[in-house]
Amino acid sequence: CISQDIDHILETQSALAVDLGGTNLRVAIISMKGKIVKKYTQANPKTYEARIELILKMCSEAMVDAVRCNCRVLGVGISTGGRVNPQEGVVLHSTKLIQEWSSVDLRSPISDTLHLPVWVENDGNCAALAEKKFGHGKGVENFVTVITGTGIGGGIVQHNELIHGSTFCAAELGHIMVSLEGPECSCGSRGCIESYASGLALQKEAKRLHDEDLLLVEGMSLKKEEPVSAIDLINAARLGNPKADSILRTAGTALGVGIVNILHTVNPSLVILSGVLASFYESPVQQIISQRALSSAQGIRVVASDLEDPALLGAASMVLDYTTRRIY
Amino acid sequence: CISQDIDHILETQSALAVDLGGTNLRVAIISMKGKIVKKYTQANPKTYEARIELILKMCSEAMVDAVRCNCRVLGVGISTGGRVNPQEGVVLHSTKLIQEWSSVDLRSPISDTLHLPVWVENDGNCAALAEKKFGHGKGVENFVTVITGTGIGGGIVQHNELIHGSTFCAAELGHIMVSLEGPECSCGSRGCIESYASGLALQKEAKRLHDEDLLLVEGMSLKKEEPVSAIDLINAARLGNPKADSILRTAGTALGVGIVNILHTVNPSLVILSGVLASFYESPVQQIISQRALSSAQGIRVVASDLEDPALLGAASMVLDYTTRRIY
Ligand SMILES: [Ca+2]
Ligand SMILES: [Ca+2]
Ligand SMILES: [Zn+2]
Ligand SMILES: [Zn+2]
Repeated sequence: CISQDIDHILETQSALAVDLGGTNLRVAIISMKGKIVKKYTQANPKTYEARIELILKMCSEAMVDAVRCNCRVLGVGISTGGRVNPQEGVVLHSTKLIQEWSSVDLRSPISDTLHLPVWVENDGNCAALAEKKFGHGKGVENFVTVITGTGIGGGIVQHNELIHGSTFCAAELGHIMVSLEGPECSCGSRGCIESYASGLALQKEAKRLHDEDLLLVEGMSLKKEEPVSAIDLINAARLGNPKADSILRTAGTALGVGIVNILHTVNPSLVILSGVLASFYESPVQQIISQRALSSAQGIRVVASDLEDPALLGAASMVLDYTTRRIY
Repeated sequence: CISQDIDHILETQSALAVDLGGTNLRVAIISMKGKIVKKYTQANPKTYEARIELILKMCSEAMVDAVRCNCRVLGVGISTGGRVNPQEGVVLHSTKLIQEWSSVDLRSPISDTLHLPVWVENDGNCAALAEKKFGHGKGVENFVTVITGTGIGGGIVQHNELIHGSTFCAAELGHIMVSLEGPECSCGSRGCIESYASGLALQKEAKRLHDEDLLLVEGMSLKKEEPVSAIDLINAARLGNPKADSILRTAGTALGVGIVNILHTVNPSLVILSGVLASFYESPVQQIISQRALSSAQGIRVVASDLEDPALLGAASMVLDYTTRRIY
């Protein structure tokens, strides 16, 4: 029967999604319904050449697996740190979290090798697209996503569309400043929320405390083989370490004030937090909003994302939305 | 000849514009080409009743003068401090810069008395509309206006339209915070750019210096009958007063950092400064952008408005644009 055939075609339609972060390079096969069929993770290489080579290798392997899994790959969606021109598929500029990653045409080499259409978008914007298609942003006209991972990124949806701005530099939310001085940031400025509240900023503080023998408290141990992390800082604070607690309070305040600045600029109805630290920041951010936002902005909802992999899902959503928009 | 008649009709079309600020209540007759035909200024009354009464009185007088000046008034445009629902013509909420000014239906009483259509919009948004129709914003798709007057307001144009946000609280740019602590603000928070860089903030600092006999330097005098103002602080700094200079540097940095936050959120191609302090802030803001904005946001132009009365002109532009859109 014809309708079954169409259902079957729709079910097998899928995307290759690539996520280029400060730490990892990930590739996934993602189905039309947002199911991650298969996922591959490697450390993100430090040079341009090694990185492109690894992307192509991982994608080619994934294509072989896709055939085995009966997935028809319609295209490749790439989420990357840095500022992106999505019309051209070019990474314009990246901070030093990803090295050798400026003026990089990502579309041409990948499209040439895999013979598939390629979409490229900033990771924060991908996270917003993911929420819009699969998460809390479904049907919400104005919302903002803030991702607290290694760095801090974000995406802004206004009137159901991403805001890109005049030079594709909109929603660089990690570099909203909440201090005239403040800690140094990877961007060259100071006092950015990324320099207070990102995974890297917290890890730096955890390491500093640990080096001074001030991190561990009773009931806490560290695995020798793993580096000290933001999570250790959170654990220490929960177990009563006042220094860890004070660092995290400042981080939460900084992130909260940065988000209030977003509310007073674009006034969304919803803020979605994602990234490894999302659930930790949910309550401090709500608290800062109630203390410092204008009364008219108080009605905002703040939620933690329940998507497993927003960047990958958002990268996939570009492929799934654009290709099917053309076909049907 | 018919075409001359139409030209004549077009030339005589005009608007009543009302501007409700922290200090003054102003009414003007404004022609289609943005000429201020006649302007009336009074102190803005402190109570709701007196304010509405004075608006109606000033508008009625202006209507009589309009007939004398051969101006056909098409409607009333109102610019006001506070957050506004322009669809309903209602002031939702105002900080204490304008007292008794929350949940105020401005459209009904004015429309009922003058028998004219009435538009109401936030003063910062009006300034942006004025730039769009008559000033530097003509033909610019994405720009932001920041007004440094008694308080600080602003308006954001994205894709040629004002951003209002989900609760008409977008572009509350005066309450972007650039410090986790910082000076107290009229909104109840701290560290807002309004609390550092507004006319009122600078006046407070000027008064403090003057009370401690630290304001006046050689070559400078104050008129006894006039209160100390932000302009006196600027004069003192220019004449070598290091304390005045330091206060103004902090104010410029705070405003600049606040504007960089706007660039990293909506990434406009142009920032227009208006209000009495615009020309003073132009160069410090440019300097802070060059020091602290991401490289991709460095290309932004910062200009001082050359409109005499952005709030009034923007208020008029709503009338002139909407009514003529309907008629022709
Ligand atoms: Ca972004
Ligand atoms: Ca405004
Ligand atoms: Zn930064
Ligand atoms: Zn404030």
